[in-house]
Amino acid sequence: MPGTAPPSGMRDFLPEDVRRREHAIGIIKRVYERYGFEPLETPAAENLETLLGRYGDEGNKLIFKILRRGEHEATGQADLALRYDLTVPLARVVAQYQAQLPRPFRRYQIQPVWRADRPGRGRFREFYQCDIDALGSTSPVVEAELCGAVADALGELGFADFAIRINHRELLTSLLRAAGVAEDAHGAAMVALDKLDKIGGDGVARELAERGVGTEARETLLVFFAAAPDVDQELARLGALVTDERGAAAVENLRAIGALAASTSAAGRLRIDPSLARGLDYYTGAIMEINVADLPGSLGAGGRYDNLVGMFSGQPIPACGFSLGLERILVVMGERGMFPASLASAPADVLVATFDAAGAGPAMRLADRLRGAGLRVMVYPDPGKIGRQIKYADSRGIPYVAILGEDEIKAGSVTMKHLATQTQDTYDQAAAAAAILERLPARG
Amino acid sequence: MPGTAPPSGMRDFLPEDVRRREHAIGIIKRVYERYGFEPLETPAAENLETLLGRYGDEGNKLIFKILRRGEHEATGQADLALRYDLTVPLARVVAQYQAQLPRPFRRYQIQPVWRADRPGRGRFREFYQCDIDALGSTSPVVEAELCGAVADALGELGFADFAIRINHRELLTSLLRAAGVAEDAHGAAMVALDKLDKIGGDGVARELAERGVGTEARETLLVFFAAAPDVDQELARLGALVTDERGAAAVENLRAIGALAASTSAAGRLRIDPSLARGLDYYTGAIMEINVADLPGSLGAGGRYDNLVGMFSGQPIPACGFSLGLERILVVMGERGMFPASLASAPADVLVATFDAAGAGPAMRLADRLRGAGLRVMVYPDPGKIGRQIKYADSRGIPYVAILGEDEIKAGSVTMKHLATQTQDTYDQAAAAAAILERLPARG
Repeated sequence: MPGTAPPSGMRDFLPEDVRRREHAIGIIKRVYERYGFEPLETPAAENLETLLGRYGDEGNKLIFKILRRGEHEATGQADLALRYDLTVPLARVVAQYQAQLPRPFRRYQIQPVWRADRPGRGRFREFYQCDIDALGSTSPVVEAELCGAVADALGELGFADFAIRINHRELLTSLLRAAGVAEDAHGAAMVALDKLDKIGGDGVARELAERGVGTEARETLLVFFAAAPDVDQELARLGALVTDERGAAAVENLRAIGALAASTSAAGRLRIDPSLARGLDYYTGAIMEINVADLPGSLGAGGRYDNLVGMFSGQPIPACGFSLGLERILVVMGERGMFPASLASAPADVLVATFDAAGAGPAMRLADRLRGAGLRVMVYPDPGKIGRQIKYADSRGIPYVAILGEDEIKAGSVTMKHLATQTQDTYDQAAAAAAILERLPARG
Repeated sequence: MPGTAPPSGMRDFLPEDVRRREHAIGIIKRVYERYGFEPLETPAAENLETLLGRYGDEGNKLIFKILRRGEHEATGQADLALRYDLTVPLARVVAQYQAQLPRPFRRYQIQPVWRADRPGRGRFREFYQCDIDALGSTSPVVEAELCGAVADALGELGFADFAIRINHRELLTSLLRAAGVAEDAHGAAMVALDKLDKIGGDGVARELAERGVGTEARETLLVFFAAAPDVDQELARLGALVTDERGAAAVENLRAIGALAASTSAAGRLRIDPSLARGLDYYTGAIMEINVADLPGSLGAGGRYDNLVGMFSGQPIPACGFSLGLERILVVMGERGMFPASLASAPADVLVATFDAAGAGPAMRLADRLRGAGLRVMVYPDPGKIGRQIKYADSRGIPYVAILGEDEIKAGSVTMKHLATQTQDTYDQAAAAAAILERLPARG
């Protein structure tokens, strides 16, 4: 017999899981639409060459590859791969449909992605991302609106304690240069510095040393990256540290973003964090990450990637995006008890119970009538002892059992048993739906 | 530069496509819930052994296989595969979570599946299925409720002309036996007979001959399978043809299903079609298929599969399901113009236009205010000529442009231009949202 567990790092979602996921997705979607983002969807699979080389060496290894089909299957070669993020497919789409798409174009995309990563708390091999991206503008209004939208979404989900850390790729480069780190060690240094909030200053210093960054540069860097909590103060401090124009422009860009974001739901959430690096290769400007205290890792992240679309279209189109990680959001919401109780809802309002096969036809007719009035109705499929059917309804939280005995069928009536109060009333079948609807709590 | 088209047979969905898909999915979901079905989701990938051998030889070849990762990648071996349908994963889930799941259990599942089939009209390599399945009962109430639910869903989508063809695997076997077809030719004969509505009697006779069915059996079969349009008449005719008990029981089962379905939205939709075979190996009882005149192939199909769950759990659990094919439904809805006009909606209600960088902050504040009141708002990211921004709003169907000039900013007011009427009014910023909301058409 084959095993019955889902593949490693992937999950089955039973009804209550799905309802929780849809609750969160519904809120995020509604907020994204309020910011003028439109829905887009792309296939689960992409041509392999679309994805290879976009995510750095580490990313390449985590791509799920799909075997060629038919006679080529035996070769063991792959030609497709599962979507690794929603950004590269977007860049491909923008290149493919340039003529039809408006400019500026804003889209949201809420779909699963797959990475052959080591599974952990809130880290899966199949997980949903909730992305917003704005294409066609380099204005800091874009970054500020993205921060506003994700802050608004998290706020409506019930989060009151998140911070949006922000940095700029050019500022990072400029600081590394100013600290005396050799250009060819920048990549390795960024990877180490990105862990500052996880492994602390000593850990980072150790990693930097391992990666060949000298003592003096290491010490300078750790001073550079000890950020002040206040945005303006920190930007002033960093402005004084950078020694080249691009670094100064990056500080100016962050200042503009911060000022604009202050008018959005992101007000008070932004922290300048010069050590933030973000792993993905394609970022070119501002980079952002959202954190809460009780979760290592982030609830979401994003940044500007002005060159990625050009890799597909030949002509560069500036772009910036933000991605909320649904799984981690759900993990924290679950742990903190943030889901409304109404989500644990019953599968139906009424269970129609029957004594024998002769009752099945009348039961179906009654069910059809009740459904037509808007009730959610299940016909218990196997006629027999009513006690068993009532027990089933009770165990499922179904509030009413419709009992159709011989007398009721003859009279065109139905006895409605309310399980919670153990009371029952007999109605004319034509009047039953209205009576029940009136007594049900309103549904969201 | 990599290509920008999606993989063969797969599609990108631009905003209006997504809205149409969500419109149809929303209706189907609502109807399924009205019948007491609960949502379930499974991973896109399954362990390869879960899928292999479940769909017949033809099916095996169409499975997308995923290469093993890491050091095993070079071996060219696959260990996972993309979901091929929603039924086999359900059987696995029911086996895995037996202890937690209620019985009877009804679930709906609306997710994509992947098959390396030759692409065609309404036939793709990535496509959504909208499944309902009821587990734990052999009662004909189950089949009747499934037929009622899909008929209700199609009705609410706007279909008024579909037929649900129904047959029974045991009846089919019984008829083949009665016609004198050798047992080992049953499979081949079923494949040929299944094409009766596509290639006609002569075509089927030719195929039967090729598959080794003798002249007499061929002629008998074609007489057997010339179905009468009336359900009762046809069941009487078939009842007289079958010569074994299992065939007679199958006719009786179809009679019970037909009688119960007459009390549902499937009333008048059912046609007995003794030639209907359905390709999948796992069916054991009633099989169903939904057709409309202007689409070859089906809008949906289903059947009873009492042994499939047992292959995973060791103990058999009776089951029956119905699957609506979203892509074909959408193809027909598109061709017939069945989508409501309101789906081609604008990405926002208001575009906030700005003259210069100094206006960006006030624009963000205004946008935040308007959004807080429930409006969908885009801030045009690049300040400059208002004409260009108005043109953008017009091309996107955005009804209002909020103009924030120096005077308005100073006065805390905003000029709202209504593009359709070319009129404009200046409001206090605190009053603008209410004024616009009042003038917008109500949103679904």
